[in-house]
Amino acid sequence: MSVLVVGSIGLDTVKTQIEEHADLLGGSASYASVGASFFTDVNLVGIVGDDFPKPHMEFLGNRGIDLEGLEMVEGNTFRWSGEYHWDMNIRETRSIALNVFEHFNPTLPASYHDTEFVLLANIAPKLQSHVLDQMCRPKFIIADTMDLWINIAKDDLLALLKRVDMLILNDGEARQLTGETSLIKAGSHIRKLGPRFVAVKKGEHGCLLFGENDFFSCAAYPLEDIHDPTGAGDTFAGGLAGYLASLNHNGPITFNKLRKAVVYGSVLASFNVEAFSLERLRTLTPQDIEQRYESFKLMSKIEVLE
Amino acid sequence: MSVLVVGSIGLDTVKTQIEEHADLLGGSASYASVGASFFTDVNLVGIVGDDFPKPHMEFLGNRGIDLEGLEMVEGNTFRWSGEYHWDMNIRETRSIALNVFEHFNPTLPASYHDTEFVLLANIAPKLQSHVLDQMCRPKFIIADTMDLWINIAKDDLLALLKRVDMLILNDGEARQLTGETSLIKAGSHIRKLGPRFVAVKKGEHGCLLFGENDFFSCAAYPLEDIHDPTGAGDTFAGGLAGYLASLNHNGPITFNKLRKAVVYGSVLASFNVEAFSLERLRTLTPQDIEQRYESFKLMSKIEVLE
Repeated sequence: MSVLVVGSIGLDTVKTQIEEHADLLGGSASYASVGASFFTDVNLVGIVGDDFPKPHMEFLGNRGIDLEGLEMVEGNTFRWSGEYHWDMNIRETRSIALNVFEHFNPTLPASYHDTEFVLLANIAPKLQSHVLDQMCRPKFIIADTMDLWINIAKDDLLALLKRVDMLILNDGEARQLTGETSLIKAGSHIRKLGPRFVAVKKGEHGCLLFGENDFFSCAAYPLEDIHDPTGAGDTFAGGLAGYLASLNHNGPITFNKLRKAVVYGSVLASFNVEAFSLERLRTLTPQDIEQRYESFKLMSKIEVLE
Repeated sequence: MSVLVVGSIGLDTVKTQIEEHADLLGGSASYASVGASFFTDVNLVGIVGDDFPKPHMEFLGNRGIDLEGLEMVEGNTFRWSGEYHWDMNIRETRSIALNVFEHFNPTLPASYHDTEFVLLANIAPKLQSHVLDQMCRPKFIIADTMDLWINIAKDDLLALLKRVDMLILNDGEARQLTGETSLIKAGSHIRKLGPRFVAVKKGEHGCLLFGENDFFSCAAYPLEDIHDPTGAGDTFAGGLAGYLASLNHNGPITFNKLRKAVVYGSVLASFNVEAFSLERLRTLTPQDIEQRYESFKLMSKIEVLE
């Protein structure tokens, strides 16, 4: 089965306290589609300007990502520039230029209408809903979001939530959306807004997964050095959606399937932050992924025989 | 085997945004010794004034805690008063009165010298070292500490660390002690200061356990309501030490034994915060503990068959 990914595609300039790199491949759909491509076929929906570097396009194509839904129009590609503090949990946006993304109004190719899995990566909830409007009864719909949309488009977001199976957001956003201090209360609260499943990302503290009567706490991989946290959440969502789609089953998506999907998402994200942009994913192998998945199992295991 | 617990014993006044209670049984050694008492015999070393309520003393004694090492002297018992914000991760100390605790200079009863397990609960590192000086080759030594000692008695703490097998501290304290932003780096760094094992407590995010080439991430139990976080860390340390002592084995304490100990500590702590002071522990049963231990296993499990 394949997964449709819609989101932003951009050129990022990223500064950490150690390094700075310009014109990197970035955007939620870039990270998410490449993350998913390790597990399944991907149909990418997005927009770029005619300045979008050919090598970036070729990289996506070489990952087996279908680019029929990627519009290229006259003008400049979306650009973002940000800087991380020593504490990489804190970042400041230095500049943002929507460019061609400002008038993005995704129209899906007919061949995408029946895609079974949908990952609405982080873009305006109105656009996410617009994509869903064009889909023909997808099997499972995942939405990612961010604080900006909770601030400026909360009604659109609430409307979207009624239509999705799973919401992914970070801990601060879960608190902001629900007004709950406790993440446990926030998780239950969000489920009442529509999605049957909620994944709350906590960065260095891992991720919490909420289901109807189920709870799963996924650890974060113990990395000593993080080079660039940009796109970790998008890669997580992509890996998660891609793994689910790869199961190729007819049965429903259950909580126990989602446990593994959350771990595979975390595995992908943990690799992604080891280098700038998507650089680490360029050389990542299925063996690397399986090895780290086994590490996640071991570091979460309570009972290990001597 | 039994565990010797030394620390503070006090009368607490605790205010949350919901309730306020005065003259509660408190102090690091109270929580730690009661936590440990669910698993093993406990020798308690501490000091109280002659105002210390008889019912508190009886409660400790009824838990099977040996009180020969508990001095009662003329004067007032140590008192602490604190207030929690809506976000219970934030608390302010409203008042503190050391009283008889100011001149505490623990002298161990001869019958305590051979206790196999030692838990140096949170008190000044100089006192913790003084207790160790009186012990005869204990099998395993655990120390807890807090930011205050890192600020005002860092040299004493560093001297202590060379003598202990395991240090327990919270995330902020681990960062403060090592100057590392990354908890993963902080954990490795602390191991180089002496203890073979380090447990970094992260409150609502669980706990990280570091060994020579091992890493374990323990989830936090998903409580919707926390009534009083006071003593959670002390109860954790007590449960952990008590469980280890209960193994009654001759072999060395291994990382895999510590995984389970960290979970049992977390189980005890998760119960403790469900009510003020040690109230929840008064009615806690071994069945409650085993049931929650099973919940920890399930919520951490990556692969669960349908």
